[in-house]
Amino acid sequence: MMRTRRTKTNMSIAVFYAPNAKDSSYLSEEESFHASKVLRLRVGEVIHLLDGRGKKFASKITAIEGKKVAFGTLALIETEPEPAFTIHLYVAPTKQMERMEWMVEKCGEFGIHGIHFFASKNSERKEIKLQRLEKTAISALKQSKNLYLPEITGLHTFKEVAEKEGGEKLFAFISNPPVNVLTKVASKDQEYHVIVGPEGDFTAEESAILKNNHWKPFSLGKPILRTETAGIAICHALHILNID
Amino acid sequence: MMRTRRTKTNMSIAVFYAPNAKDSSYLSEEESFHASKVLRLRVGEVIHLLDGRGKKFASKITAIEGKKVAFGTLALIETEPEPAFTIHLYVAPTKQMERMEWMVEKCGEFGIHGIHFFASKNSERKEIKLQRLEKTAISALKQSKNLYLPEITGLHTFKEVAEKEGGEKLFAFISNPPVNVLTKVASKDQEYHVIVGPEGDFTAEESAILKNNHWKPFSLGKPILRTETAGIAICHALHILNID
Repeated sequence: MMRTRRTKTNMSIAVFYAPNAKDSSYLSEEESFHASKVLRLRVGEVIHLLDGRGKKFASKITAIEGKKVAFGTLALIETEPEPAFTIHLYVAPTKQMERMEWMVEKCGEFGIHGIHFFASKNSERKEIKLQRLEKTAISALKQSKNLYLPEITGLHTFKEVAEKEGGEKLFAFISNPPVNVLTKVASKDQEYHVIVGPEGDFTAEESAILKNNHWKPFSLGKPILRTETAGIAICHALHILNID
Repeated sequence: MMRTRRTKTNMSIAVFYAPNAKDSSYLSEEESFHASKVLRLRVGEVIHLLDGRGKKFASKITAIEGKKVAFGTLALIETEPEPAFTIHLYVAPTKQMERMEWMVEKCGEFGIHGIHFFASKNSERKEIKLQRLEKTAISALKQSKNLYLPEITGLHTFKEVAEKEGGEKLFAFISNPPVNVLTKVASKDQEYHVIVGPEGDFTAEESAILKNNHWKPFSLGKPILRTETAGIAICHALHILNID
C-alpha cells in the first residue's frame, strides 16, 4: 500500500497528469494548483509526469507564473508497452453517482482501458456527467502507478453498444441455470468488451439483441452483485485470467 | 443486479436479519423499525428471515407492538451447507472509515466469513468502531442473497494476528522482485487467513515476524492498490480460485 500524501517521512516525488507533456511546458490549471498550492512545490523541485498513454517522465519545475506551473526538459524514466489485453467496460450507471466513482477508482487501480456508460430500458440514470469521473480516474492513475489512463465515455444508447464490432464481446447475464463464469467464458489476451446491465436487468428484448449481435453471456456467480461490484469483479477477473 | 427498494412494480418479499429467529418471535428493534416504518409492512404480510448462518426462513408478521414487530411460525426455505472454503481477512484499517465500509460491503457481496481489524506499527488508525461496519455487513447480506454473515472483530494487536494458528496463512507483501500472486500461492478448499498491511506497509521487523510464524507472502501484482481495494481483490481472487 502507499501513502497518498507527501509527509516529512515520505518525501516521494509528486506525480502529475500531463497528457500533452511533449508539446507543452505547462501543467494544466488544475495540476498547477495542486503543485503550487496544495503540495507547495517550488521552482527547482523534481516532479514526475504521466502522459496516461504508457510513459512517465521526470522533469523540474522551472517557473510558477500565477496559476500556471512550468516545467523543463523531460527525461523518460518509465515506459510500458501496449498491454497484450485491453478491457473496455460498458455500464448502465446507477442512480447514486458515488457508486460509479468508486467503480472508476477501483477499476483504475487494477488497470482498465475504457469505461463507457450507456442507457437501457431499465436504467435508473438517463444522463451522466463525466468530468468528476475523469478526475477520479486521474487520481487512481497517480495512486496506483499504472501508466494507462482509461477513456471514459457516455452516455451511449443501448443500440450503439449492442451493435459494436470487434474484440471479445461478453455480457453479464442472470439466468437459471446459470451460464459459466467470466474466467471460464473469456479467452486470454483479447480486446475485451464487457457489458454490465442495469439494476433492473436487461429486458428480454435487450438480451436477445445482445445475443443476436454475438455478445457471449457469462455469470457473475451465485451472489447478486451491485452494478459497481460487478464492474470491479469483471475488471479484476480479467486481470487474474491474464496472469502468466 | 437487483432493486434494493420495494416498488409497485417489484413487490419482492422483504428480507430481515434475525440471528435468533429460532428462539425469538420478534425482529430486533432496528429491523422492526425498518419493517414497520420504512417499508410500512402490515400484519399478515410474508417476510423472509436470514439467520446469517446458512438458513433462510419464510414467516408472516403477526403483530406490530409499538417498536417491536412479531412474526409467526418459521418455514425453512433455503439452506446452504458450510462452504468448502472460508475466508478470513485481517486488515490494518485506513484513516477514512468510509473506505473500510466499502470493503466490508463488497466483501460481503462476494461472500466472506470474517473481517478482522488490527493495529500495526504504521497503522493510520489505532481504534475502530465496529457497529457501523456490522450494519453494512447485514445490509450486504440481504442485498447479495448470501446466507452467511461475516464476523467482524477488532481492534486486535499485530502480535495476536501474527501468532494465530491453523488454516492457510497468507500475507500481501510488496517486494522487488515480486513474489507470486495469490491465485498461484494459495491452494483450493482451505480455511484462508489473509493479511493486508497498513498503507505505510509492514516494518521489516513485522514482516520477519509473519514469516517466522509461517505466513506465506503473495503479491497483489504490479499496481499499488489501496487497502480496501486489496481486501476486495483478495476476497474475489479466492472465490475465483475455488470455482469448480
